[in-house]
Amino acid sequence: MNLTEIEKFTEERERLNKLVLEEFADLEIKRFFGLDSQVYRDDVLPQKTKEMLGLVASLVLRCDDCIKYHLLQCHEIGVSDAELEEIISVGLIVGGSITIPHIRKAVDFWKNLKK
Amino acid sequence: MNLTEIEKFTEERERLNKLVLEEFADLEIKRFFGLDSQVYRDDVLPQKTKEMLGLVASLVLRCDDCIKYHLLQCHEIGVSDAELEEIISVGLIVGGSITIPHIRKAVDFWKNLKK
Amino acid sequence: MNLTEIEKFTEERERLNKLVLEEFADLEIKRFFGLDSQVYRDDVLPQKTKEMLGLVASLVLRCDDCIKYHLLQCHEIGVSDAELEEIISVGLIVGGSITIPHIRKAVDFWKNLKK
Amino acid sequence: MNLTEIEKFTEERERLNKLVLEEFADLEIKRFFGLDSQVYRDDVLPQKTKEMLGLVASLVLRCDDCIKYHLLQCHEIGVSDAELEEIISVGLIVGGSITIPHIRKAVDFWKNLKK
Amino acid sequence: MNLTEIEKFTEERERLNKLVLEEFADLEIKRFFGLDSQVYRDDVLPQKTKEMLGLVASLVLRCDDCIKYHLLQCHEIGVSDAELEEIISVGLIVGGSITIPHIRKAVDFWKNLKK
Amino acid sequence: MNLTEIEKFTEERERLNKLVLEEFADLEIKRFFGLDSQVYRDDVLPQKTKEMLGLVASLVLRCDDCIKYHLLQCHEIGVSDAELEEIISVGLIVGGSITIPHIRKAVDFWKNLKK
Repeated sequence: MNLTEIEKFTEERERLNKLVLEEFADLEIKRFFGLDSQVYRDDVLPQKTKEMLGLVASLVLRCDDCIKYHLLQCHEIGVSDAELEEIISVGLIVGGSITIPHIRKAVDFWKNLKK
Repeated sequence: MNLTEIEKFTEERERLNKLVLEEFADLEIKRFFGLDSQVYRDDVLPQKTKEMLGLVASLVLRCDDCIKYHLLQCHEIGVSDAELEEIISVGLIVGGSITIPHIRKAVDFWKNLKK
Repeated sequence: MNLTEIEKFTEERERLNKLVLEEFADLEIKRFFGLDSQVYRDDVLPQKTKEMLGLVASLVLRCDDCIKYHLLQCHEIGVSDAELEEIISVGLIVGGSITIPHIRKAVDFWKNLKK
Repeated sequence: MNLTEIEKFTEERERLNKLVLEEFADLEIKRFFGLDSQVYRDDVLPQKTKEMLGLVASLVLRCDDCIKYHLLQCHEIGVSDAELEEIISVGLIVGGSITIPHIRKAVDFWKNLKK
Repeated sequence: MNLTEIEKFTEERERLNKLVLEEFADLEIKRFFGLDSQVYRDDVLPQKTKEMLGLVASLVLRCDDCIKYHLLQCHEIGVSDAELEEIISVGLIVGGSITIPHIRKAVDFWKNLKK
Repeated sequence: MNLTEIEKFTEERERLNKLVLEEFADLEIKRFFGLDSQVYRDDVLPQKTKEMLGLVASLVLRCDDCIKYHLLQCHEIGVSDAELEEIISVGLIVGGSITIPHIRKAVDFWKNLKK
């Protein structure tokens, strides 16, 4: 994956979110998407911590798209390499070797984000 | 995904099912595939309801191929857009935001099926 | 499990829901609980179908409490024994033998509900 | 858990299997239960290996009842302590620390089986 | 659950950990248990953040024992009610309504811890 | 998938493992990768049995990359077609029809390995 692939990921995600929300979703789906944004907002816990929570949850549930999205957010909000290592260590120990293929892709994605 | 991709999905699925059943499967695997067809047949519950059950189960278990297959069946048997919205709402609430990447692809696939 | 245990299940569920909603939940959690009620309401799909969807989703995700709750709802709304058999058949085929311990408890719970 | 609890586990399992098969199951459920017995029978792979496969699958999917059942079978067919250690090591590494509560109960159950 | 049940949880956990480590585990299992302690230690990320990560991972993977253990750690290290609410909100949105039975028990356990 | 795709899988896996281990991993991640190799080594259980355990665990957890890796190992260590059939039968019965898309790809990969 190179920088162009990061852009491709973001564009495809936006295209499909728009399709779901504007041409498909009923009120319940829209409200859920609203809640999904709200829970990561700065509050008692800073957004940075919440993005870390979202990332580790996505890793142990093994969802590549969710991992990539939270990596983008973590990168933007200033999570460091060393912090990411420790988040991934926790996810790996909790979730086991079955998470390794997702960790491989996550690290590759992160390295491209840092370029 | 465009119409050609729907055809590609169906062809690849058929090629591999044939490979599994004709060149690999033992009696247990074959019997399981048989059961897998039977449980969706019209009976006390109509096939339409059963395809909906198969779809929501595939969504919360987050299997794109299974979702696509049941969307094909739902489309053929006349599930409406409004019905699909409600099935997906249930799956999203039960399974959480981790199902969203699968919902995005499902809606895209469905929109192409309707063309 | 006997009738008293059904009552115990319902009472404990209500006690804890009250604890969560009145003494713990923030706005996001409350809104999620609201959505969780809304998606099963009569709409384009009848509530009966939606409870079946909730049941099969709970079965393949292997959550005994969720299964029991949807069995209670299915019972109240008039799902028949024969319909339940077919819902469970779909769940068993999709989810495999790992769902059997949950099916055993579900059938026991259902038989007690019918008494 | 003591020896009496092993008996209780076996009796409850048998009572509920009987309930499911004699008073509930349709043809598909019965056929699935049949297949579920067949796949562990001595064939190209010995039953002992197949029970090990069933055990590790149950462990990574984190189903206590399934783990106990396969431990009973493993015990009966002569799996040694040292072999069990290695099966559990594989399951722990694949499935991560989330399997540890199940491993704790599995070891306790096994120690009681050996008494 | 009352205070005595918290003690019972802790004692049973310790008894079984001892059984696993002293009378069962091979080198790989012991090393894994070692790693499992290390990843939560104060480092670039403070232990408090890591316990939060462990908690949300346990919640979305729906393991009551793991949730209880991380709640104990979170309580000891000073996680506040408001912080816990937000961790649980993230877990609920990511993992969906299937996590609710675990959230009910978690809140009950937490309330008893605070007594 | 053809022979070239097997090579591509192996190369990409090695490139990313190198990236993770040399440019990202902390001590805990490195130790976990070490343990992950050790548990499959010849010991009381032969490596062949352990690779079978790893394969069935990967199948029921539905991780294509892990399945492919263990198929490569199984192929190298001499697992026969008939043995593979029985491993996959167990995985299919335990894990249900949701594993079928992974079985399709596994059989395709295996057939190419045998060429």
